[in-house]
Amino acid sequence: MSADQPRVDPALVAGNRIRLSGYEARHFRWTVHERVGTVTLDRPQRKNPLTFDAYAELRDLFGRLRHAEDVQAVVVTGAGGNFCSGGDVHEIIGPLLRLKAPELLMFTRMTGDLVKAMRHCPQPIVAAVDGVCAGAGAIIAMASDLRYGTARSRTAFLFNRVGLAGCDMGACALLPRIIGQGRASELLYTGRAMGGEEGLQWGFFNRLCEPEHLLEQAQALAHELAHGPTFANGLTKAMLHQEWDMGIDQAIEAEAQAQALCMLTEDFSRAYHAFVEKRRPTFEGN
Amino acid sequence: MSADQPRVDPALVAGNRIRLSGYEARHFRWTVHERVGTVTLDRPQRKNPLTFDAYAELRDLFGRLRHAEDVQAVVVTGAGGNFCSGGDVHEIIGPLLRLKAPELLMFTRMTGDLVKAMRHCPQPIVAAVDGVCAGAGAIIAMASDLRYGTARSRTAFLFNRVGLAGCDMGACALLPRIIGQGRASELLYTGRAMGGEEGLQWGFFNRLCEPEHLLEQAQALAHELAHGPTFANGLTKAMLHQEWDMGIDQAIEAEAQAQALCMLTEDFSRAYHAFVEKRRPTFEGN
Amino acid sequence: MSADQPRVDPALVAGNRIRLSGYEARHFRWTVHERVGTVTLDRPQRKNPLTFDAYAELRDLFGRLRHAEDVQAVVVTGAGGNFCSGGDVHEIIGPLLRLKAPELLMFTRMTGDLVKAMRHCPQPIVAAVDGVCAGAGAIIAMASDLRYGTARSRTAFLFNRVGLAGCDMGACALLPRIIGQGRASELLYTGRAMGGEEGLQWGFFNRLCEPEHLLEQAQALAHELAHGPTFANGLTKAMLHQEWDMGIDQAIEAEAQAQALCMLTEDFSRAYHAFVEKRRPTFEGN
Repeated sequence: MSADQPRVDPALVAGNRIRLSGYEARHFRWTVHERVGTVTLDRPQRKNPLTFDAYAELRDLFGRLRHAEDVQAVVVTGAGGNFCSGGDVHEIIGPLLRLKAPELLMFTRMTGDLVKAMRHCPQPIVAAVDGVCAGAGAIIAMASDLRYGTARSRTAFLFNRVGLAGCDMGACALLPRIIGQGRASELLYTGRAMGGEEGLQWGFFNRLCEPEHLLEQAQALAHELAHGPTFANGLTKAMLHQEWDMGIDQAIEAEAQAQALCMLTEDFSRAYHAFVEKRRPTFEGN
Repeated sequence: MSADQPRVDPALVAGNRIRLSGYEARHFRWTVHERVGTVTLDRPQRKNPLTFDAYAELRDLFGRLRHAEDVQAVVVTGAGGNFCSGGDVHEIIGPLLRLKAPELLMFTRMTGDLVKAMRHCPQPIVAAVDGVCAGAGAIIAMASDLRYGTARSRTAFLFNRVGLAGCDMGACALLPRIIGQGRASELLYTGRAMGGEEGLQWGFFNRLCEPEHLLEQAQALAHELAHGPTFANGLTKAMLHQEWDMGIDQAIEAEAQAQALCMLTEDFSRAYHAFVEKRRPTFEGN
Repeated sequence: MSADQPRVDPALVAGNRIRLSGYEARHFRWTVHERVGTVTLDRPQRKNPLTFDAYAELRDLFGRLRHAEDVQAVVVTGAGGNFCSGGDVHEIIGPLLRLKAPELLMFTRMTGDLVKAMRHCPQPIVAAVDGVCAGAGAIIAMASDLRYGTARSRTAFLFNRVGLAGCDMGACALLPRIIGQGRASELLYTGRAMGGEEGLQWGFFNRLCEPEHLLEQAQALAHELAHGPTFANGLTKAMLHQEWDMGIDQAIEAEAQAQALCMLTEDFSRAYHAFVEKRRPTFEGN
């Protein structure tokens, strides 16, 4: 594509393409480096609990990532050796007890909307999980595409310990597809913690890292993905959950259409020419 | 809740709440102890095979558990070191050969109705599996929510050995979701036995126990669940299979509604206050 | 069944039953021995890549297997120590770059139709995977029912390395159901190779074999299946993917009907009588 041949209507760009490098997050840390955005939950003295405001801001940020042109993969992590302790007991659970049904549904829909936004943005999300990963924290890890953990990490779907159901923010749909129905049932009914080795063996974690290298390795993976064929990656992500409730024939037809679209990208052409010329391809996501 | 404020319409209680502690089973043993019901298949000399009558009584018992107020978790086990050898060759398979299509469908629907009843009652079901676990016995183990096994247990989906299909009582829907499509295919096509260690590694079993402690450990797990937030557990169970054929957005909306309902329970409130007061919560399932 | 009582209308036989023993394949090798058909991808100097013609002929052969009376199980393998290197870079990827959208969709539908044909023929398919198993080759292995591999095998869903999406020929529907959503995501986003041991541990492979015994052991498994209750096996296969997007109740009703049908077969009767007479049953697939 030559520079003097804009293929994209400027109005569409204005409406649909935004930059998030300069976004200043208020309830967590947000940085962007070489196409990789990193969310750091950052209240380490309390093991990074979530608040109403943090939920809402995360939901909005992941929602805006659908239109971001400068972020092609995301890492989610926590500060101070823990991932996230979930919804804050004092700032969330206490107040919930004073709400009525319509307000409670407003809250559970807000937390669910965070998972929807994580699944519907095209960027692959890598969770970097150390230490405590509990409740809504475990959900955020689970709603990511890939997970790097540590041997000392403790992932617990704590809901039934606080009198709630394991069906929170999509857990009963997501967790069985990652670790199987029997293991998911145990974690959701009992709330017991899954250790790092166990999580690796069960396919919850894609890799265990040393704590001091965890973030760096998660970012390296995200960096690799962010410099791959990102338009195609976005379709892979969409299909990975869209085909849950399709039959095999419908899934194959959906993939035939999606892949034909990818075959019209310049990334596909670039990869072919690089292969023929025995060099590494440079992908641009178009 | 004070004792003089009945929240429940007596007519609804009469119709919808029953007690099963005193139920006297005819084709297996049934005991209830501290909210945990235990089904023991009890024809040890033949490795606890099922008969038409046993199927029907199990179906009816699990159906009635939907309304039981005194049973909050169930254990299923077998007497004499075996779980269950499946449908009795002489008492079931022989007679089936003399039936015509409508009667055969009546039979396969009856066996399927047992699995439906096991999935639709709100109590989590723990299978305690030792020794032989074959045919319909393997299905009953699989249709439970959690499974404790022993190293010497042998679980076999024997159907193709007797000329039948692996698709029996929901096996092709359930087994791949527990151990994955490839492993399920092998067991269902070949009828070969899965050993205890293999079953643990594949996520079929949640734990292996020594045979002499198996029942006790399964009952301890059931006891823990039966004294947790049982209303919430019932919703977890419903969602764990109800979300199989939902998209992610529908699953999240369904969970938002279910969890909002749980947030209105006193169990949720009790857990919060116990946490704040640094004591263990006492759940009552309401 | 006595020989003078033909149960099948000759016109139906003529239209619906064909023999494939004598089929002479042009773009791969095809042999039939004792009810087992073997497809050998056979361009070993290039690690058995696929071409447009090979795709089309495979699609047609698996399509015709629906009607074959002399093939009851299929093995797919590759010549010369490799399974399949996928779509040929020069013969497929290069030409694709010159196609327009309608022609590209025609191509992706053709490759998808191969997977559909593999899933819709009643014969269980055993993939025997050694060495390189890449791109569309990995898809063919995945679309099989069972997989035997070798420790040195390298299975890679390479699509994103060539600028394409991981959603190719049903991969996003099939792979998560075999190895789980998290592991499938890693393989599809990164294109990295899964080793043999890893594939065994993850449930992708049912067994690892020594390379020199791989084909023989895969054919032994296929031989066993081909001499089992093949009508019932075909129903098992149909249900194993048909129930992906059913709820539990619908799956159980579907299985009740399918199994009642199997109970009317002579294979079921033969198995019962063999059991009573303490001998091995001989199945005939009717």
